[in-house]
Amino acid sequence: MGRYMITVEYDGRNYDGWQAQEGRKTIEGTIESAIYNVTQEQVTIFGSGRTDSGVNAIGQTAHFDLSKDIECDTLLKAINFYLPCDIAVKNVVKRDPDFHARYDVKVKTYLYKIYNSKVRSPLREGRYYHCSYNLDIDSMSKAAKYLIGEHDFKGMMSLGSSVKTTVRTIYDVKIIKEGEEISVFVSGSGFLYNMVRIIVGTLVDIGRGKKTPSDMQRLVEEGDRKLQGAVAPAYGLYLYSVEY
Amino acid sequence: MGRYMITVEYDGRNYDGWQAQEGRKTIEGTIESAIYNVTQEQVTIFGSGRTDSGVNAIGQTAHFDLSKDIECDTLLKAINFYLPCDIAVKNVVKRDPDFHARYDVKVKTYLYKIYNSKVRSPLREGRYYHCSYNLDIDSMSKAAKYLIGEHDFKGMMSLGSSVKTTVRTIYDVKIIKEGEEISVFVSGSGFLYNMVRIIVGTLVDIGRGKKTPSDMQRLVEEGDRKLQGAVAPAYGLYLYSVEY
Repeated sequence: MGRYMITVEYDGRNYDGWQAQEGRKTIEGTIESAIYNVTQEQVTIFGSGRTDSGVNAIGQTAHFDLSKDIECDTLLKAINFYLPCDIAVKNVVKRDPDFHARYDVKVKTYLYKIYNSKVRSPLREGRYYHCSYNLDIDSMSKAAKYLIGEHDFKGMMSLGSSVKTTVRTIYDVKIIKEGEEISVFVSGSGFLYNMVRIIVGTLVDIGRGKKTPSDMQRLVEEGDRKLQGAVAPAYGLYLYSVEY
Repeated sequence: MGRYMITVEYDGRNYDGWQAQEGRKTIEGTIESAIYNVTQEQVTIFGSGRTDSGVNAIGQTAHFDLSKDIECDTLLKAINFYLPCDIAVKNVVKRDPDFHARYDVKVKTYLYKIYNSKVRSPLREGRYYHCSYNLDIDSMSKAAKYLIGEHDFKGMMSLGSSVKTTVRTIYDVKIIKEGEEISVFVSGSGFLYNMVRIIVGTLVDIGRGKKTPSDMQRLVEEGDRKLQGAVAPAYGLYLYSVEY
């Protein structure tokens, strides 16, 4: 009984994104079905935000209400029993009735995984974005600094989404290289449509010398969409964590 | 012209193992086809050894002879062009004509990946063996020490393979825990049929308290097959490296 918050991991490859849509296989719809199978209650789950088609999550969060009283640990096992192998609830906790998984988000962190090597990696296929150009991490990190703070990111979104404001705050961008793997962590108050994938596409262009860190500065300050890099592929993107 | 050695990475899920067999999709057969497409020469490649159906490789090695003279770097790119996305040649080097990828092996190292957590991980699905019991790494490491050295491993192989001798030398076993991931590295002169998967299955039984480290000692010293753990699943196994 009451409000529950779940933390969810998923491999987004076989789904049309998070949000439930009639006639489409989505993460939200699949979890709602599993909860129905457990509780016989037709709930709507509220995610911390949508993830696009093909995007993965390590720590997506969502809330929903139940009229039955079920222990968190029992609920966790039962929902996972009904979920397919590419979705799992990692954690269930009770929340106050006024908690909201989307409106109460303080920090959201995305991870983007790049495999930087001349030859592609079969074991990282569909998990990492393979970049065969030698990437200069120092230039990328220098460029990433321009993203930090509150900015109008109108130049760093894909068209086709309607939002009230294109102002967002980026708290941190970390670029970590371990061998041939590069992890880009981006933390912010929220993100525009395709924003993280555009940030990564632009960082890759800077890393390979096709653009400079000052192009990133201009992109952030002037919002000129022509300075964008390509939208990096969905499969390299992971919603890493959501903080409240 | 001459003898070439290749280092190969592959995701073994879609293959009936390494060794070419009429009418079956194998890693060896697929690479031989790619080499034929590049060179128009019908070569036989000699691997460092077979890997079973579903087993992966990070650094499998093999050699073959060409009558044409092709630069290593050109060969690498051309073979990869013809290989499917779940196989890639990571490196090509020239070798002396008497080098043999199987007979000259000094040390072979396998990696087995375990995900040790109450809840399964969608992003590690088909890559890690999920063990939901809490594993005691100290017991596992203690048991692993009994494997090191030259022993008759007749108690640690699956039946159905004919070998001249069941004596093998294990040089090292390392068990590394990072968060919920456990990596088991096993280095040896060579391995019997399913030997690494039986070692891991037995270590898991010891880690969860179903068996003790002294059961491993008896299994090694007495060769009593009844002390074996289950054969751990193929998808968690990676041929990690081959040294000459």
